[in-house]
Amino acid sequence: MPNTPADEQRINAIRFLAVDAIQKANSGHPGLPMGCAALAYTLFTRHLRFNPTDPHWFNRDRFVLSAGHGSMLLYALLYLTGYELTLDDLKNFRQFDSKTPGHPEVGRTPGVEATTGPRGQGTAHAVGLAIAEAHLGAVYNKPGQPVVDHYTYCLCGDGDLMEGISQEAISLAGHLKLGKLIFIYDDNHVSLAGPTDLTLTDDPIARFEASGWHTQFIDAGHSNDVATIDQAIHVAKNVTDRPSLIAVRTHIGFGSPRQDSYLAHGEPLGPENVKKSKEELGWPLAPDFYVPDDVLAFYRESVGKGRELQAQWQTLYDAWKAANAADAAQLERMIAGRRPADIPWPQFDESNGALATRDAGGIVMNAIAASLPELVGGSADLDPSTKTYLKDCGDFEPNAYAGRNVHFGVREHAMAAINNGIALHGALLPFGATFFNFLDYCKPALRLAALSEIHNLFVFTHDSFMLGEDGPTHQPIEQLAMLRATPRVNVVRPADSLEVVEAWKLMVNAEHIPWALVLTRQKLPFLGKRDAAVSKGAYVISEAGGGHPDLILIATGSEVSLAIDAQKLLEAQGRRVRVVSMPSWELFDAQPQAYRDAVLPPSITARMSIEAGATLGWSRYVGERGVAFGIDHFGDSAPAAVLAKTFGFTAENIAQLATDSFALSTR
Amino acid sequence: MPNTPADEQRINAIRFLAVDAIQKANSGHPGLPMGCAALAYTLFTRHLRFNPTDPHWFNRDRFVLSAGHGSMLLYALLYLTGYELTLDDLKNFRQFDSKTPGHPEVGRTPGVEATTGPRGQGTAHAVGLAIAEAHLGAVYNKPGQPVVDHYTYCLCGDGDLMEGISQEAISLAGHLKLGKLIFIYDDNHVSLAGPTDLTLTDDPIARFEASGWHTQFIDAGHSNDVATIDQAIHVAKNVTDRPSLIAVRTHIGFGSPRQDSYLAHGEPLGPENVKKSKEELGWPLAPDFYVPDDVLAFYRESVGKGRELQAQWQTLYDAWKAANAADAAQLERMIAGRRPADIPWPQFDESNGALATRDAGGIVMNAIAASLPELVGGSADLDPSTKTYLKDCGDFEPNAYAGRNVHFGVREHAMAAINNGIALHGALLPFGATFFNFLDYCKPALRLAALSEIHNLFVFTHDSFMLGEDGPTHQPIEQLAMLRATPRVNVVRPADSLEVVEAWKLMVNAEHIPWALVLTRQKLPFLGKRDAAVSKGAYVISEAGGGHPDLILIATGSEVSLAIDAQKLLEAQGRRVRVVSMPSWELFDAQPQAYRDAVLPPSITARMSIEAGATLGWSRYVGERGVAFGIDHFGDSAPAAVLAKTFGFTAENIAQLATDSFALSTR
Repeated sequence: MPNTPADEQRINAIRFLAVDAIQKANSGHPGLPMGCAALAYTLFTRHLRFNPTDPHWFNRDRFVLSAGHGSMLLYALLYLTGYELTLDDLKNFRQFDSKTPGHPEVGRTPGVEATTGPRGQGTAHAVGLAIAEAHLGAVYNKPGQPVVDHYTYCLCGDGDLMEGISQEAISLAGHLKLGKLIFIYDDNHVSLAGPTDLTLTDDPIARFEASGWHTQFIDAGHSNDVATIDQAIHVAKNVTDRPSLIAVRTHIGFGSPRQDSYLAHGEPLGPENVKKSKEELGWPLAPDFYVPDDVLAFYRESVGKGRELQAQWQTLYDAWKAANAADAAQLERMIAGRRPADIPWPQFDESNGALATRDAGGIVMNAIAASLPELVGGSADLDPSTKTYLKDCGDFEPNAYAGRNVHFGVREHAMAAINNGIALHGALLPFGATFFNFLDYCKPALRLAALSEIHNLFVFTHDSFMLGEDGPTHQPIEQLAMLRATPRVNVVRPADSLEVVEAWKLMVNAEHIPWALVLTRQKLPFLGKRDAAVSKGAYVISEAGGGHPDLILIATGSEVSLAIDAQKLLEAQGRRVRVVSMPSWELFDAQPQAYRDAVLPPSITARMSIEAGATLGWSRYVGERGVAFGIDHFGDSAPAAVLAKTFGFTAENIAQLATDSFALSTR
Repeated sequence: MPNTPADEQRINAIRFLAVDAIQKANSGHPGLPMGCAALAYTLFTRHLRFNPTDPHWFNRDRFVLSAGHGSMLLYALLYLTGYELTLDDLKNFRQFDSKTPGHPEVGRTPGVEATTGPRGQGTAHAVGLAIAEAHLGAVYNKPGQPVVDHYTYCLCGDGDLMEGISQEAISLAGHLKLGKLIFIYDDNHVSLAGPTDLTLTDDPIARFEASGWHTQFIDAGHSNDVATIDQAIHVAKNVTDRPSLIAVRTHIGFGSPRQDSYLAHGEPLGPENVKKSKEELGWPLAPDFYVPDDVLAFYRESVGKGRELQAQWQTLYDAWKAANAADAAQLERMIAGRRPADIPWPQFDESNGALATRDAGGIVMNAIAASLPELVGGSADLDPSTKTYLKDCGDFEPNAYAGRNVHFGVREHAMAAINNGIALHGALLPFGATFFNFLDYCKPALRLAALSEIHNLFVFTHDSFMLGEDGPTHQPIEQLAMLRATPRVNVVRPADSLEVVEAWKLMVNAEHIPWALVLTRQKLPFLGKRDAAVSKGAYVISEAGGGHPDLILIATGSEVSLAIDAQKLLEAQGRRVRVVSMPSWELFDAQPQAYRDAVLPPSITARMSIEAGATLGWSRYVGERGVAFGIDHFGDSAPAAVLAKTFGFTAENIAQLATDSFALSTR
């Protein structure tokens, strides 16, 4: 059925807001907004449930523009439908500190659900949103009272689907039978560098079907046939026993002289082509950013419709709340990001004996799990090793969405990005665990967590060559430096069980930032009852005999006990040695200068850092006269004790090095 | 057809060498060697063309054990078939500096083709090996003289196939129709943490078919039916118009009490279960590491067969060489890793004007391409942006394997790992290009390149927030620190076209190490004809007026010209300022102390580093009194000039900061 002239006008309004904004910025990607305008129009005006005046309405449908380079498509729709986004904001596209950055950034623009742009991430973020919805619905909904009940849509391009993370996300979503997750594939046959068939000849339908998805392919009459798109979305919504894919044959740069060419992908059309495009589609050449009054009026009906939708839901919610006061209080607490006051933090003392920090972590998580229903997550097929399984919380599996243990499979990258989505949904606090070395696999998603200020908890175990026999392919070296160099990530490497529990307190009570908890495979001694000042990043864990140290050993994690052993040897030689435990650089750097100087007095220049990782960056703490002791080469496959000796991580070697350093510094 | 008793004995010999070695090490993964022994036996004794006495025979079939945790399967076969690996080596499994590390490491064990263990990597390495074979065959083979003509086999597990990188590799291999690539999937229904259907319910056959692969599923009579496996491999080899998958239903831990349980996956069986397994399969309980003489004799026939295969090939090769002397000389040069003496390196001077280093890089690559036929590679769908397209070298596409431009698609991770495989094949020098920020996507493969000492060239463009409007999702911050913290990677960030050409000289002529070339999107001025000592990592690019500097500005890449501008301002104020260009930390750190002290005299403590990236690590060069100027927060979406000003990357701000620093340092 051909579109009505009114539909065409409304679709063209999206196209030319995007084209004009990109042309004004002289930067951007016009191809996607032009090619996807009709399908986005259909989705936003006929299906998506949202309230532009309350972008945080908890039960709204979620829409993720995984193909984030098409940001102007989204910004145009957010403006048209009445979000707090003005025409001036569109005119500020890609300008400093604007609400309309080059790629969508969550938290910066009302209505943007996820930061996207790095290809593929949005697909996994969407899966996370859908997992959160399924879980919360399973836990809180009552018969006839579906208080959490919405769809998650994801618009993705060929770039998203070529990235491996999308396969991880698709495979897991299919396994989990997430029935309210709908992907729309912008099947435009063109990528940045040329036609997609230069490098991509997969059958996308078959690929999704192999993972158990419902699929539809529509060639919607030159991509403009609203009725066809509308019908496909209807079908997808009604398939609730598995996720749905709608592949839509679109035409990149639709209506422009560059239509169906990769030239439409990544650069402005240029004034001449803008003019030709407007002529081709019957759009007034002037003014720029033109939106006919009736078009705007039509879109702005979304405001009233949205308010009504939310009001209906509120009525439902109020009735549910009246009948389920405790549930409601809990859900509202979780949505607000408040933690209960009475979390039963476990106590550790000498009686626990030597304990790997991964084991201590598992004890903490299981101790607090019952009081923190928002804590959901899992590992990348390593529960038995990472110790992160929540024993009494059930598995999140098809038809058992109330379970809190997600079996992510060997899919570190999707795990991290899915957890971003879970956190972005609201109410939940996700965690994901794997071996520290495999941080490498999920780094792009961790970066997005930091950029998006997402409270996502990463648990990394097997944190050094001390994991032993698995060898250098599994032994992290540079990973601590990678994390520390990344803005806005808090890294904590605890020295014993007491620091683990302190770290978890910080992680649970923090907001708006990802945390990386870095834990050992091997057992570590309990370092004594004390005020383990993890929140301050570093503290004196063992002072020099008689005070007045003239040497400071600074260590993290498993090397703190080693430093204390070395301290004993040195003190026996008459040295005065302070040991500083420094579980977190970021937290220490945030302390007042006075505190930092108290822990690391500037007058004491004989300093040595000890950490089983790359030494990069340590010179800022040990100074010019200090020694950064670590491991700047790959490990080896051997029992941990053999490696410790070979690589010099023994108290004797540390003491010897420190003695040398101390001697040097007094010359 | 049931196996003969002789077959069974030979298969069990593999199983129990693995079981005994793992038990002796008290560490390892017995499940895979026990479950895959029959299929590996069939492959190695009936199909794989190799010569144990010359593991480097150029035309051998390649075998990649992507499921690297099953290393003992491979070690057992290498020992049995007569590689330079002794029974004592097997007894040293997982011991320090042994030939039998926990996961296979190329270069350490004869017969190991790739370092594997981090899941999924082997699949892409195998695709790289097959690409290299296809390319070399297309270039050098003559009718009747297929001097490069071998299969590449990859044994992978569910962990490999869950990782996104495998999808990228599968998708590209299918697109490229790599007919001599055969994957064998160890379909054992069990992963480390439990049954795979806890998290994986894909139809693997359908998934591979969606990417155009030929597929077979065999349930080989309790996984032991050699005839069935043999037949499937025959079929796969005969399908030469596309890659082949053979999914084999196997039984993890076959024959042990833990058969078909995840408990067999990742830990030794324990003495009691070893005993029971031997009883179950009718194997003598003693001695350990028992191999019946006739079994060993049978396997050792591989030595004679291998010599004969190689001799036959040598005859073919000699005839080909006689008729194609120039080709042979070229191929032999490339295999030896020697570069031609007469590479036409381009000259740059003022007449080139301002040039982005990415553009300079493209000019260099195209200038040298004709004389360096070993240079093959491409970008992750970013040729127009990374400028890495080799204009006269054709595309590597189905039925056009002589082309040298590989269109990797938006598959950064597979690109990097495939290039590892291309390099490991021998003869070729691969490069892969993407935006610097997307280093994150390929980090695991870059790490393997470093660990495996692979000469793999990474070209990263758009190297700072100065890429502008694409915004913080695309603007690298921590990536330089990530690379510098990683052992055994050389990083070069050139300041202008002259440094670019010097960097390429180093990269082309080096061996056994990956390089990361970090280039700008924006134009940079030409910094003058000079001896740009890139090979020394850092050099004085602009000395203080009159010599005797009392302040040193140290900069890399695009910030060098900025530093020189700041120097001018400071000199105008009467300061004496040296500017050091430091394109590579690794190369500088490798210089003698005297050279380093000449560039950065210890007496000059007023130092400031300037780099548009995280400052982590710079304190080692600027010292306690110095200033590390960089950007330790995320960027923004805006024109580059706006960002430069906002973030303080202007000559005026640098000069001001330097003045302040200098004043401080003299107090």
